[in-house]
Amino acid sequence: MIDLNRRNVVLAAGGALAAGAVGAPVWAQNPGRKLGYAIVGLGGYGLGVIIPQFKDCQHSRLVALVSGDAAKAKRVAAEYGVPEKNIYNYQNYDSIRDNPDIDIVYVCLPVSMHAEYTIRAAKAGKHVLCEKPMAMNSAECEAMIAACKQAGKKLMIGYRCHFEPFNLEAIRRARAGEIGKLRYFRSEHGFNFSNPNAWRLKKAMSGGGSMMDIGIYALQAARYMTGEEPVALYAKETTDRSDPRFREVEDMIDFQLEFPSGVIGSCMSMYSANQNHILLMGDKGRIEMEPGTAYKGNRLWVGKGRETEITPKDVGANQFARQLDHLSECVLQNREPIVPGEEGLRDIRIIEAVYRSAREKRRITL
Amino acid sequence: MIDLNRRNVVLAAGGALAAGAVGAPVWAQNPGRKLGYAIVGLGGYGLGVIIPQFKDCQHSRLVALVSGDAAKAKRVAAEYGVPEKNIYNYQNYDSIRDNPDIDIVYVCLPVSMHAEYTIRAAKAGKHVLCEKPMAMNSAECEAMIAACKQAGKKLMIGYRCHFEPFNLEAIRRARAGEIGKLRYFRSEHGFNFSNPNAWRLKKAMSGGGSMMDIGIYALQAARYMTGEEPVALYAKETTDRSDPRFREVEDMIDFQLEFPSGVIGSCMSMYSANQNHILLMGDKGRIEMEPGTAYKGNRLWVGKGRETEITPKDVGANQFARQLDHLSECVLQNREPIVPGEEGLRDIRIIEAVYRSAREKRRITL
Repeated sequence: MIDLNRRNVVLAAGGALAAGAVGAPVWAQNPGRKLGYAIVGLGGYGLGVIIPQFKDCQHSRLVALVSGDAAKAKRVAAEYGVPEKNIYNYQNYDSIRDNPDIDIVYVCLPVSMHAEYTIRAAKAGKHVLCEKPMAMNSAECEAMIAACKQAGKKLMIGYRCHFEPFNLEAIRRARAGEIGKLRYFRSEHGFNFSNPNAWRLKKAMSGGGSMMDIGIYALQAARYMTGEEPVALYAKETTDRSDPRFREVEDMIDFQLEFPSGVIGSCMSMYSANQNHILLMGDKGRIEMEPGTAYKGNRLWVGKGRETEITPKDVGANQFARQLDHLSECVLQNREPIVPGEEGLRDIRIIEAVYRSAREKRRITL
Repeated sequence: MIDLNRRNVVLAAGGALAAGAVGAPVWAQNPGRKLGYAIVGLGGYGLGVIIPQFKDCQHSRLVALVSGDAAKAKRVAAEYGVPEKNIYNYQNYDSIRDNPDIDIVYVCLPVSMHAEYTIRAAKAGKHVLCEKPMAMNSAECEAMIAACKQAGKKLMIGYRCHFEPFNLEAIRRARAGEIGKLRYFRSEHGFNFSNPNAWRLKKAMSGGGSMMDIGIYALQAARYMTGEEPVALYAKETTDRSDPRFREVEDMIDFQLEFPSGVIGSCMSMYSANQNHILLMGDKGRIEMEPGTAYKGNRLWVGKGRETEITPKDVGANQFARQLDHLSECVLQNREPIVPGEEGLRDIRIIEAVYRSAREKRRITL
């Protein structure tokens, strides 16, 4: 079992970020080169959200597509200037090993496919960016980390908020002591799920309900905002099983994290109402974000209440492009990503404990 | 042990309120008469907050003072036109029985004195309004209820938010279905305690820390906003015992209430940071208050976020005067107050379970 050293955890969750790991690009060695990405999965996220971001990248470009839908892949390839020879399907996927255009594979598939397509990419000699949640369970995460390590390839998890200007500004101000001693963290993340046929509602594909998909943002924020790792937790699930959306997965989970400093993290995840909120309370004030983790339009207040709204200097920066470029830089400079596979594993282990606590109706020590 | 019937609970916590129990005064029988109040305790709350409210009352007037500080009582009596013969101390307090000016005694003392001064008032043939938290523990609450019942006198607890325009408007809109099906309730209540010598920080006088004093607002709001009674709870306490304020009582408690409908109530109480917030989330929108339970200046939003701010029709109504008048009306019309002793007992029983959960680190069924 992989040991997640506490010191490394804190660095990954906040230290590296706050120190400006995503600041000015360090691109001395290969100023002209952009690394080539293959996008695996042309669903709502891969096609709708990620592919359009490459236009804002400095060090990354779209070079290949992997899809089960040949016609769709051909159309997308034409639109984004991807050569037809760089279109793959799930059968011939392993042959990407012979394609030097592809440096990095970005896995944008249902959660149940993350482990397989990450491990096959590593075996094909490619670096991997994998969407969150990292995998169905911690055993899969460990296998993914091991496969990338064995292949000598980078593995990064798509925690885009680590590259998002408002979150970075909030972390910086919390660490600088602007609200005094931190006492309490709270975050609710949820939305009212509209499509009852979505793969996210099928447990065999998603691994779980709102906690895996959107609650993970509250959990992540609790960790990167406090800069601490939880030592115990308690969780309560509430799901209306007569709702056709929730036959297989949970709707709402309210979970409470205990941090070593005494800070409490009170988090909520749900699929039946819209909410996107982050609050840090210190003895001298508070930091509030609403929305806190949106694709764009996040807002931030620092002070006694909502009197003072803060706009980060780099307000217009593209979190998705930054994320893509971060892994490209790490590959070129042989650095570890700030959100490596180990970071994804940490969350999955905590999520497993959340589910266990809810099931057994008791506090779980981590 | 007093049995708190669930149906009555729901009525007290929301039904009676929402039905307009504090609406237009029903004052047919005694249009000219104002009932006489004796204020017991001239501390910050009794003297600073309550006494100045009688000027806005229609059916209540200040007629007597009970204090251990004769000089202070004389000064206050002169200022508010209370005759000197109506000044009492803690020794001759029982002789209020011989004073027909006094109809109601309002107990504004440290919590440890609530039971004694309520029971002595009842034995002296007076109705009682007692500040919250009702008493040190549920056994004291039961004794207070029994004493008032035996004397045939009313007992009401000072839950002023049941008379506060913004809270009533929020309850009305929640019950009217304006945010759809309620899914989640949250409230944080806290302030940064400044005076380390205050009686509220001495356990023998307060019975406990922030939970008894300010967390009770979050608990109350969870009950009157949802209109439900919790069936189980889990609580986590965090207190820095090296802080001189917290040698005897707790600082922070985060507690989660489970309601029968599946609604979760996530509440926090603290003495080390300022917060006063109420949120109801439904599947069609949300109701938010910040501050939610202040003496004045409460704010209310209803909708998707904070786009639409609501001002109740009776925005200027004085919650304190309404509270005083409510008990006067109940006495004159021989009605039960909407927040009787049984309501105070309910909260104390839940608070006892909160402390037990935090101590034993486990979920408690109620």
